[in-house]
Amino acid sequence: MADLNFFFNPSSIAVIGASDTVGSVGYEIMKNLHEDFPGELYPINIKQKLIFGKPSYKSILDVPSKVDMAVIAIAAPFVSDVLEECGKKGVKGVIIVSGGFSEIGEKEREAKLLEISKKYGIRIIGPNCIGIYDNFSGVNTIFLSKDKISFPKKGKISFLSQSGAFAGLILDWTSKERIGISNVVSYGNKIDVNEADLIDYLYYDENSKVICLYIEGIRRGQKFMEAAKRVSKKIPILALKSGKTKSGAKAASSHTGSLAGEDIIYDSAFKQSHIIRANNFEDLFDMAKALEKGIFPKSDGVAILTNAGGLGVMTADALEMNGLRLANLSEDTIKKLRDQFPERVVVSNPMDLVGDADKGRYEVGLNALLEDKDVGLIIVILLLQVPTLSLDSVDTILRIKKISDKPMIILGAGGEIITPYLIKLEEGGLAVYPSPERAARAAYALVNHAIVRGDIHRERKENIGVCKI
Amino acid sequence: MADLNFFFNPSSIAVIGASDTVGSVGYEIMKNLHEDFPGELYPINIKQKLIFGKPSYKSILDVPSKVDMAVIAIAAPFVSDVLEECGKKGVKGVIIVSGGFSEIGEKEREAKLLEISKKYGIRIIGPNCIGIYDNFSGVNTIFLSKDKISFPKKGKISFLSQSGAFAGLILDWTSKERIGISNVVSYGNKIDVNEADLIDYLYYDENSKVICLYIEGIRRGQKFMEAAKRVSKKIPILALKSGKTKSGAKAASSHTGSLAGEDIIYDSAFKQSHIIRANNFEDLFDMAKALEKGIFPKSDGVAILTNAGGLGVMTADALEMNGLRLANLSEDTIKKLRDQFPERVVVSNPMDLVGDADKGRYEVGLNALLEDKDVGLIIVILLLQVPTLSLDSVDTILRIKKISDKPMIILGAGGEIITPYLIKLEEGGLAVYPSPERAARAAYALVNHAIVRGDIHRERKENIGVCKI
Repeated sequence: MADLNFFFNPSSIAVIGASDTVGSVGYEIMKNLHEDFPGELYPINIKQKLIFGKPSYKSILDVPSKVDMAVIAIAAPFVSDVLEECGKKGVKGVIIVSGGFSEIGEKEREAKLLEISKKYGIRIIGPNCIGIYDNFSGVNTIFLSKDKISFPKKGKISFLSQSGAFAGLILDWTSKERIGISNVVSYGNKIDVNEADLIDYLYYDENSKVICLYIEGIRRGQKFMEAAKRVSKKIPILALKSGKTKSGAKAASSHTGSLAGEDIIYDSAFKQSHIIRANNFEDLFDMAKALEKGIFPKSDGVAILTNAGGLGVMTADALEMNGLRLANLSEDTIKKLRDQFPERVVVSNPMDLVGDADKGRYEVGLNALLEDKDVGLIIVILLLQVPTLSLDSVDTILRIKKISDKPMIILGAGGEIITPYLIKLEEGGLAVYPSPERAARAAYALVNHAIVRGDIHRERKENIGVCKI
Repeated sequence: MADLNFFFNPSSIAVIGASDTVGSVGYEIMKNLHEDFPGELYPINIKQKLIFGKPSYKSILDVPSKVDMAVIAIAAPFVSDVLEECGKKGVKGVIIVSGGFSEIGEKEREAKLLEISKKYGIRIIGPNCIGIYDNFSGVNTIFLSKDKISFPKKGKISFLSQSGAFAGLILDWTSKERIGISNVVSYGNKIDVNEADLIDYLYYDENSKVICLYIEGIRRGQKFMEAAKRVSKKIPILALKSGKTKSGAKAASSHTGSLAGEDIIYDSAFKQSHIIRANNFEDLFDMAKALEKGIFPKSDGVAILTNAGGLGVMTADALEMNGLRLANLSEDTIKKLRDQFPERVVVSNPMDLVGDADKGRYEVGLNALLEDKDVGLIIVILLLQVPTLSLDSVDTILRIKKISDKPMIILGAGGEIITPYLIKLEEGGLAVYPSPERAARAAYALVNHAIVRGDIHRERKENIGVCKI
């Protein structure tokens, strides 16, 4: 397994094609690195002398110190020459942002890059990519301006994307969705570093606890499956694969030249290598949000606790449609709760605490479910709009979460007034979902990974009737 | 067809059980009506003399003027007596908020209400419901406090819900999602007014252009289907039906006592009465948002225009999975655009304008698609995070929208910086979706309704592989 650490945690970076022309790619890369990267930064530009207040060099060979990693953002015909110079300089890794290679039919030009990379033992990400966003080390070659996108908070989810534009969108979207990200990598034409290498690297990255993939087509399937199989026992891997239909496959071929392949082959490959397939990008990150907590069920029985009956019904539906099972509460649990709860409470699964439930009723219910052996995980539905649940009910949930060894998933949604409640639950370490179906998908991912880990001993059930979109 | 206008547009309302005890149901109803309802308001309370500064009466019979509609929010055992008084007073419609009837086994108590309603010819909504929220007339019997929920902006979507709690959640959630609502009705045990009556009423309501339903179980199926079939040719009807699985059906029976019935029967009934079935509540309102615009396709060919290839691929997939067809662009369209666009633009469907597309390129592309006969509707994907699309690109889209007779759906997502762009598109009358799959579902709903209207002549294709959750 190759070490790619110099891409994510270099001591020094050279930006070849750095610029102080606002809006240019070389400007945005320099600006982001200048603001976020704490190591040495060397702008390389044949014309300018000072860029962002730093001395600029005509060639990377002129840089007086060692350079770990270089980013190349110059016109395609000149890339091979500067790559050769990177080789001579002893640079370990190069991100080639420039486009204009095999994606437009320039195959020889691209082959030349691979030849140089082998000659000097340089690893290459790209070409035709937007590179790396590492939320911990500050490496950021994503050349979208901070005037147009926001970056997400630190977290444990890594995202590897064949599409650069989509990677950019996901960074901005996760910032709004309050989803924590460790790394995003767009690897473009992947002439050298590919999904398999990145998965292997992330296995050892202490900041990454879930790996999400966006794939249009895999070239070296065997290597990818081996890596995924090795890694997914420890770190869950989720994949969104497009080009599933005829229309989609045709579009993918015009986009990244990917041969999307028969979708059924991908389905089977994902299954064999324990990759959980996402139906769409919300689904991808919904599942990742639950998995990143690192708490997995020991039983495949799911309990639903609710103060809104209708949402309980919809959640029960969604669980069954994901091939999951409602936990059978023990006689002991039922007897105990029947004695403590008013008659109108439905002591069953779903457990309907009814509309006037307060934090005390939730506490009694939750504690009983945590003790019940058949309950592997709990979906807690909170209709926070009712007068009996105030902000301190959130504290109650969080206090129980702290002592719980079972995963808890929150279903809660609402407007401006309720959102702070939901944020408090998230900040307390709980994954929160706005709908029954999305909460159920998170439960599906947790049970699925627990089976892969060997914590739950049963067949991985296919999700029944779950959409493939 | 019965007239229910007095429920939605009464001149006067009596609140039986009105109260000035903060937090009580009678307080919240009075408070919301006091703030929002411009007509006469009469609090009825056996003890208090002044409520919200208004003289309170011991009985509705003491009210000196005519009362169109009454809301009853007192303990169940006393409801029949006050209902009798409403009858004597000549009240036309009564919303019985109080619970404690058939849902807890008190069937005789409930039968008594129906008897009185027939005796006096009073129409009843409820019991055991939260009643009506009419965003235009100010009738609001939803007894959730404005301290806990926000109400949505005015719009053209009506929502009928068997679950009161869910109706409350939807009001709050649509406020955040910027979805416009005309009416929300929760009808609880529906001893008199049911889904069929409400659908019939909304047919003539000029503010309602789409009807959304949340159903756990239908009792009088034939009447419902007849009403739906009649109405859905003019006003699209969407339904979310829970209790689809064994687990869900069991939960529904504990919740509203509904016999969920075989799901396949509902599927068939919905199909026969041209009801579009939603997979979940996001899906329900995603489709409604597109339908409320009232512009429907004349061809079932869908065109995709994008500056992000990956999103184009995902959208093509999602369309095909919804049984939709990508439009075949005419040779004329292709030739014209090939001449005007740089070589890197993919002149096909999806049409990939590539990452450096500006508003001019969108304008040329859109105009050509609007002229192409096989294009019935257009999904416009805007990766607004790129430097070449600024706020005035939104103006360009809106300008074209104004002269377009084809529906346009926007796919755009992002964080804090991009959100104002999306809001501007929405305020300009376009439906905006955050993901390819959600935009494709909106397209599905538009084509589906156009077939029901008779504007597109083809079989209604089942959505292929689309999830049932």
